[in-house]
Amino acid sequence: MAVRDEFSLIDQIRRRAVVTERTPLGIGDDAALLTVSGDAGVLLAVDVLTEGVHFDLNACAPEAVGRKALAVNLSDIAAMAGRPTAALVGLVLPRQRSESFIDRVMEGLFQLAAEFDVEVVGGDTNTWDGPFVISVTVVGEPTGGRAISRGGACAGDWLMVTGALGGSLSGRHLSFRPRVSEAQLLHQAVDLHAMIDLSDGIASDARHIARESNVGLIVEADAIPIHEDVDPSQPLAERQRHAISDGEDFELLFTVSAEDGQRLVEKSPLGISITRIGEVVDGTECRLRYTDGRIEPLPKGGWVHRFDHS
Amino acid sequence: MAVRDEFSLIDQIRRRAVVTERTPLGIGDDAALLTVSGDAGVLLAVDVLTEGVHFDLNACAPEAVGRKALAVNLSDIAAMAGRPTAALVGLVLPRQRSESFIDRVMEGLFQLAAEFDVEVVGGDTNTWDGPFVISVTVVGEPTGGRAISRGGACAGDWLMVTGALGGSLSGRHLSFRPRVSEAQLLHQAVDLHAMIDLSDGIASDARHIARESNVGLIVEADAIPIHEDVDPSQPLAERQRHAISDGEDFELLFTVSAEDGQRLVEKSPLGISITRIGEVVDGTECRLRYTDGRIEPLPKGGWVHRFDHS
Repeated sequence: MAVRDEFSLIDQIRRRAVVTERTPLGIGDDAALLTVSGDAGVLLAVDVLTEGVHFDLNACAPEAVGRKALAVNLSDIAAMAGRPTAALVGLVLPRQRSESFIDRVMEGLFQLAAEFDVEVVGGDTNTWDGPFVISVTVVGEPTGGRAISRGGACAGDWLMVTGALGGSLSGRHLSFRPRVSEAQLLHQAVDLHAMIDLSDGIASDARHIARESNVGLIVEADAIPIHEDVDPSQPLAERQRHAISDGEDFELLFTVSAEDGQRLVEKSPLGISITRIGEVVDGTECRLRYTDGRIEPLPKGGWVHRFDHS
Repeated sequence: MAVRDEFSLIDQIRRRAVVTERTPLGIGDDAALLTVSGDAGVLLAVDVLTEGVHFDLNACAPEAVGRKALAVNLSDIAAMAGRPTAALVGLVLPRQRSESFIDRVMEGLFQLAAEFDVEVVGGDTNTWDGPFVISVTVVGEPTGGRAISRGGACAGDWLMVTGALGGSLSGRHLSFRPRVSEAQLLHQAVDLHAMIDLSDGIASDARHIARESNVGLIVEADAIPIHEDVDPSQPLAERQRHAISDGEDFELLFTVSAEDGQRLVEKSPLGISITRIGEVVDGTECRLRYTDGRIEPLPKGGWVHRFDHS
């Protein structure tokens, strides 16, 4: 095979890994041992990214793939207002890939890990004749004494979003910065009722909040902040469709009381915008309302596998 | 696609999952939240299993694959003398597989999880046109106040193994029972210095103990218990080769003081055999010694990807 054997590959990764007193046993044993601070428990998330579906190696650098594989998981921890602490990396390597390929994937991952003070504590490596697969598990800790679930939205809440949405495929789906610190700042500033990260787009992710909270939602279509990555020459309806359905924005979608919402709109505690894009209502319906009075069901479509040419 | 959409697939898995007070937030949020008992920290392991490498779906039931994907991870926690508590499951599903395929994979996994009181608390599902990939992350807790690493072997220790080795490909690599309770019983009975589970075979795994402990090993070739799954009509040397190199035995390989070793041999605290197969020595060499006096280097070969027909 083109890549070195598993033994030396793990050695290589291990040398690059930063290990602190948080991790009495890291890479190189049957399992990693992590210390846990406080009694708020541990957060765990996993995402598997596959070549041709979540990334196109003909169109992006290996570093960007490694970075994204960790970033999507950090975004999951952010959505709980958690602090990520550690990651495990499962690799399935195409046999024909060169040694430098995996070095570059891991370099992208390690760089982002260092930025967020996350330790790579373990993993698994395999080779095969299929496409590249990377599975990242991330460990975190709740902040402020509790994790924010999708399940706490109440009728009357404001539905709010950080940043602007749509057009991530032009590059942001690889380069986005997980909203880890922003989520913690929100958690300190207000009483977050429910939160999720926008991986699949509002059309899909808002439904998760509605369902877990057993509430309905009205999304104000004309209030949704459209990202400048969405082609401005397109008609408004088309641009709104992108903002709602493109997905991979990795912004935070959350609900708070109207009072807290008002405070966030008047003075954002974050360096980025916070926008009210709707409200939580009784019932279970998710609807889209336009300023001209039209109301329609929130589209079902969410993120589609855009690199999947099958 | 042939399989249902991710939303309903996660629903299905969620309905099947058993959730206890250990898991304030399980499947259905951005991350799972687990409570942690005690202050010994958490154990984490991940293994990625790929179709055509770790299993052959033409030769085994989907249930067996789901079971194996969890079992290999439970074996990693066993190797730390830990108690597994939770698992996360990342699935990459071939688009052409039927709905019942994934039901059956998960059924096999859930059955083993129930046997070991392990909760499935989260995961990730994807579809693609490639082969089936299943990535399982398992969480555990140290028992007896500490985890047993690969790094504690001392010169003079006995090298010991549970059960018998070789020939797992005939079926045991799918049906093996992870030595979770056996490891905990050993941990209670004696002072375990170093331990690993035999996934790749002694030829490879004993080296891990030697390296992490910075010691040498002498393995007594004629003492290695050969499993009845190894064809008894083969010459002894060939059968020994199988026992040393086949891998996927998922037995425990460990070192203890000679006194503790003697006690284990005289009266096994387990329902299975415990055999002394060598000793820990100064230096860094791993050697194989025969009763006729021959000494040779421990073969480098370990588990090879036997289903990989490339």
